[in-house]
Amino acid sequence: MATIELIKKAKCFGGSVEYYTHSSVSTKTPMTFSVFIPESAASKAHKPAMIWLSGLTCTEENFMTKAGVFPWASAHGITVICPDTSPRGTDLPGEHESYDFGSGAGFYLNATESPWSENYRMYDYVVNEVTEILYTNFSISKDNLAISGHSMGGHGALIMALKNKDKFKSVSAFSPIINPMNCPWGQKAFSLYLGDNKADWEQYDSLMLVEKSTSIPPMLIDQGLADDFLAEQLKTEVFTKKIIDKGFNDSCTIRMQEGYDHSYFFIASFIKDHIDFHAAHICRD
Amino acid sequence: MATIELIKKAKCFGGSVEYYTHSSVSTKTPMTFSVFIPESAASKAHKPAMIWLSGLTCTEENFMTKAGVFPWASAHGITVICPDTSPRGTDLPGEHESYDFGSGAGFYLNATESPWSENYRMYDYVVNEVTEILYTNFSISKDNLAISGHSMGGHGALIMALKNKDKFKSVSAFSPIINPMNCPWGQKAFSLYLGDNKADWEQYDSLMLVEKSTSIPPMLIDQGLADDFLAEQLKTEVFTKKIIDKGFNDSCTIRMQEGYDHSYFFIASFIKDHIDFHAAHICRD
Repeated sequence: MATIELIKKAKCFGGSVEYYTHSSVSTKTPMTFSVFIPESAASKAHKPAMIWLSGLTCTEENFMTKAGVFPWASAHGITVICPDTSPRGTDLPGEHESYDFGSGAGFYLNATESPWSENYRMYDYVVNEVTEILYTNFSISKDNLAISGHSMGGHGALIMALKNKDKFKSVSAFSPIINPMNCPWGQKAFSLYLGDNKADWEQYDSLMLVEKSTSIPPMLIDQGLADDFLAEQLKTEVFTKKIIDKGFNDSCTIRMQEGYDHSYFFIASFIKDHIDFHAAHICRD
Repeated sequence: MATIELIKKAKCFGGSVEYYTHSSVSTKTPMTFSVFIPESAASKAHKPAMIWLSGLTCTEENFMTKAGVFPWASAHGITVICPDTSPRGTDLPGEHESYDFGSGAGFYLNATESPWSENYRMYDYVVNEVTEILYTNFSISKDNLAISGHSMGGHGALIMALKNKDKFKSVSAFSPIINPMNCPWGQKAFSLYLGDNKADWEQYDSLMLVEKSTSIPPMLIDQGLADDFLAEQLKTEVFTKKIIDKGFNDSCTIRMQEGYDHSYFFIASFIKDHIDFHAAHICRD
């Protein structure tokens, strides 16, 4: 059982919102996360959970305070855990200089380039450690785990689900960076974290992972049509085309939402649909 | 029609969250507010609205992002407006030195003491200007207005409803400062804003206003029993006793909620009940 230390706790919807810190073997730093444990989780024989991965500049705080997930997660008894978005406290050269690289911008990969390779291993951290914490510290059933996220976190959720079909029974995303190899945010992050070898980049690119897949997990994507980042960074349409070309339509729903932007007001508007979607795959009792 | 200037806008639950600035005649400063206009408001012949007053240190932002009010307000077609908690930009001596007085801590009264009396007139601002903005700029029916708030804002909602039974059809509060004359937060604010005359203080004290009333508006109060401020600052029990002594039980429900603290996780847990409560009084079609 991982040693996790409670930082604070508040009763919420009959359950509780809890914040923890622990020592990560992946990042070699302390890491923090928040978790919502619904009141109804206690009565579940096979406890389901959803990992939420946040976007650039976020911490473990944003989704928990802004998404309005509590009533819907409570209705299904789904525990929701939100990791931080990068290691903290390392103070590497240039780590805090831009909003889209370094602290708050771990991009959910395992860096191979110096000086990032020592600590920036958010892929291993989420796939191995956060899942293990859910199993052992929060009694989550290994067969009842979903993953979701927003923007950079939508990218993280999609790559992790596509590469770990045994671990994640369903995946959803809001405004995901679905083809980071071909957008400015992704190209900056991948070149600095991974170097110049495009074969390494492809391991962390949802579009390329779908291209190489023979099947995909159940997938729901919401994308706002008034999102300022859609044209340059998110490019949902190339992913939609790829899903169709590969014949994966039955496993993937992509909804282009008229008038919605990139904010948490968009997430709050549709998070119920995402929770209901995951519930169909991870709630067995 | 008041001249209000749109700062930003986001689609939310089919409706929109909008932020405005305008010039206030009460505070003689620019003031900002946020407003949620549900999609279903458009179809209402008599549009209802709820004013939300936030607590110490807050702005027009906190409730809109953290309370999770959108699904419930949408269900009833209730517009929700959140004013800022004090004038800004005046830079009076000592205005920014403490969290419980001055900026972010207007206490919803009309100050009479120098130098505060010129700008710190949040009572007039909310009762006269915010209501007028709702009527003229957002087509809210004059007979369909409710008011609610948290902590200092719960105090504000209660005093405004008790003093303006014609304007506010129902009032609710989370963790309100119900007897500011007899707690440290209130005594500090009232002495600096109002001077030493206790007769002036009584005009802004819910307990004293109830004492002098022959009737009260429909009222719902939620108070967490794990609230760190309950014993010293909030003292809900004296209000409960006063309601009983005055025979106002039929108009007032006070719920002491086991395990809940002073945070927005508490508000999010019960905001649906408050919206449903107000809907019964302000939704006519």
